[in-house]
Amino acid sequence: MKWIQPIAVTYRTIRTLSTLVTCHARNRRILIRFAGFGLGAATLTTAVAAGSNNANVINPSFDASNFMAEPITPRETLVNDKDDMRVKMELLIMKTQAEFCRALENEEDPNTKFKVDRWTRKEGGGGVTCVIQNGKTFEKAGVNVSVVHGTLPVDAVRQMKARGKYLVGNELPFFAAGISSVIHPTNPHVPTVHFNYRYFEVTQENGEKMWWFGGGTDLTPYYLVEEDVKHFHSALKAACDPHDSGYYSKFKKWCDDYFLVSHRNERRGVGGIFFDDFEKPSKEECFRFVKSCTESVIPSYVPLVNKHKNEAYTNVERDWQLLRRGRYVEFNLIYDRGTKFGLHTPGARIESILMSLPVHAKWEYMHSPPAGSPEAKLTEVLKNPKDWI
Amino acid sequence: MKWIQPIAVTYRTIRTLSTLVTCHARNRRILIRFAGFGLGAATLTTAVAAGSNNANVINPSFDASNFMAEPITPRETLVNDKDDMRVKMELLIMKTQAEFCRALENEEDPNTKFKVDRWTRKEGGGGVTCVIQNGKTFEKAGVNVSVVHGTLPVDAVRQMKARGKYLVGNELPFFAAGISSVIHPTNPHVPTVHFNYRYFEVTQENGEKMWWFGGGTDLTPYYLVEEDVKHFHSALKAACDPHDSGYYSKFKKWCDDYFLVSHRNERRGVGGIFFDDFEKPSKEECFRFVKSCTESVIPSYVPLVNKHKNEAYTNVERDWQLLRRGRYVEFNLIYDRGTKFGLHTPGARIESILMSLPVHAKWEYMHSPPAGSPEAKLTEVLKNPKDWI
Repeated sequence: MKWIQPIAVTYRTIRTLSTLVTCHARNRRILIRFAGFGLGAATLTTAVAAGSNNANVINPSFDASNFMAEPITPRETLVNDKDDMRVKMELLIMKTQAEFCRALENEEDPNTKFKVDRWTRKEGGGGVTCVIQNGKTFEKAGVNVSVVHGTLPVDAVRQMKARGKYLVGNELPFFAAGISSVIHPTNPHVPTVHFNYRYFEVTQENGEKMWWFGGGTDLTPYYLVEEDVKHFHSALKAACDPHDSGYYSKFKKWCDDYFLVSHRNERRGVGGIFFDDFEKPSKEECFRFVKSCTESVIPSYVPLVNKHKNEAYTNVERDWQLLRRGRYVEFNLIYDRGTKFGLHTPGARIESILMSLPVHAKWEYMHSPPAGSPEAKLTEVLKNPKDWI
Repeated sequence: MKWIQPIAVTYRTIRTLSTLVTCHARNRRILIRFAGFGLGAATLTTAVAAGSNNANVINPSFDASNFMAEPITPRETLVNDKDDMRVKMELLIMKTQAEFCRALENEEDPNTKFKVDRWTRKEGGGGVTCVIQNGKTFEKAGVNVSVVHGTLPVDAVRQMKARGKYLVGNELPFFAAGISSVIHPTNPHVPTVHFNYRYFEVTQENGEKMWWFGGGTDLTPYYLVEEDVKHFHSALKAACDPHDSGYYSKFKKWCDDYFLVSHRNERRGVGGIFFDDFEKPSKEECFRFVKSCTESVIPSYVPLVNKHKNEAYTNVERDWQLLRRGRYVEFNLIYDRGTKFGLHTPGARIESILMSLPVHAKWEYMHSPPAGSPEAKLTEVLKNPKDWI
């Protein structure tokens, strides 16, 4: 591979450039490569080089020309270590990010596209953050991939593992690859969705290596439409069942327990699935399950966006949406282990961690929806989670 | 004292009733008494009884008829134990609350008055929460007094003491009396203020009794007006200096250190004073210092409200105010020890703890004010705190 022309570009032009150069590449056997320097740095270096016809096809399942940006790990490693779980997970989350972003763009005004920021972390690794802000359909949509490594304070690692308290040591070598996304739609009749899938490796002080997967997908509607919630949960169950008939009910309960805003004794939303410390029966089978989960994101959620995005709504409904977004902020900043992990990670990219926060949120002292109102109907379900299927 | 007529009233009518009955009391030697049952309960029981002419004058410094509601501790105890620090602190914070609320009402539309909620906590004690929401001058103004006792998980106590990690035991008997206030004005040219003064007693597992004071007042402007910040800091310094010429500079630095949004490496505002574990030279002198601090709140802040409340402002300025309020939410929910103490306290009244949150807040991915703008000028000071006097 020969680099022939490094070009400095701002983050804002990457997507355009990426599209242009990718088209170019397909016709003229040219490979693009991005390398980001510095955390949150405002420039990227782009180089155009001669390459083979199928340079973007890392393996039969992954064509990198569809990704939102160049993966974090160098191409050579991705090709040479294709059976390493680190590589498999990075490619899975890059693919998931690209497919989900494109599915969301299909629901947007044609002029609204994801802003793509590829960033590196000086302590090791980096990520690709894709954001739509103040779109027609999405007030804020964030889809973030990160592939990071180095050493971590044990406090940070604890946030990423349900049984983290058993970890020993001060600074532990780690690797983490994950995708995390929160979508806050404009219309209060479209629910918010969150998903996060991650693979983690930690080496304990005694040299013992640990690995595990974690993740989940959950829905936060502003108004309860039971058939939508059933659709959402059914799609998740369909992803779980082929792997283990007990997964759905187990992970559905875990989700209800995890997304508890305990100071208000209510759940953040109507749940979904959540799991952590996932390491059985084998690394390969765990990965296959996580892959099924990532593949269920679009069918579980995007039809709900399409169904409701053009519905009329009132100021009262918008106001209620903003109050619920305030509760979302409370959960994310007070309880969410992913956010805490991010805030505890040295050199973390704060804008990528906090992209989960809504554009607008509201708090009202002693707000309580009128009895019998649609708002009270939602609140009832948040206080008493139920089985949907 | 003989109770002659218990009357159930809703919280919303207390203030009116209080005014009516107090006037009545002054003319006809009648004493009112409120007793709240149940945390956040929607009703109070009021009783009217025969009393002495000066029944509201608990001691020469405190006339309870001016308070926003009946104190939490029974009148008999307040009179009989008038030299007990618990009583002195309760009366000081009730008086501070009333004077500050009235000073704020003077800056409001004449029809906008504080909503007064007197609440009790089934585990012991209670409080008085006063809130204005969506006023003309104040988008949200909360002034909360709480006087609580019982036992506390040691984790909760730790949040209330800078050196809390040295506390031992599981459930510790405690008493806490404090006033806490956050004022979010409507106009972006009027700064937000926060103050909190508290007295704490804890009995360790070994029987050792500890007491300490803590508190502070700090300012969060949206636009930097240096002479305002100087005025604010000067008023605090004037409160400190008669007690110890070293207090102001020590507590000013502590304030800059405490109100750090560390994940953004910026302070919440332009500081003020902050102190904790305050127990020297004596309980009485500590109290006198805290009293001076509470007396400096109105002169430090209210002139700034009066000066700017009618200034014109643009949408850009309002937008910036909302973004800064997002940062305020981040500090309060992630770092603030007072909030954490509240959320860890069994039976805590969540609406009183979270009244510090603004009505509206906003987050924008990768927001950065243009170089040289007034917004950038503020940000510079938040990143690099300076000496104001």
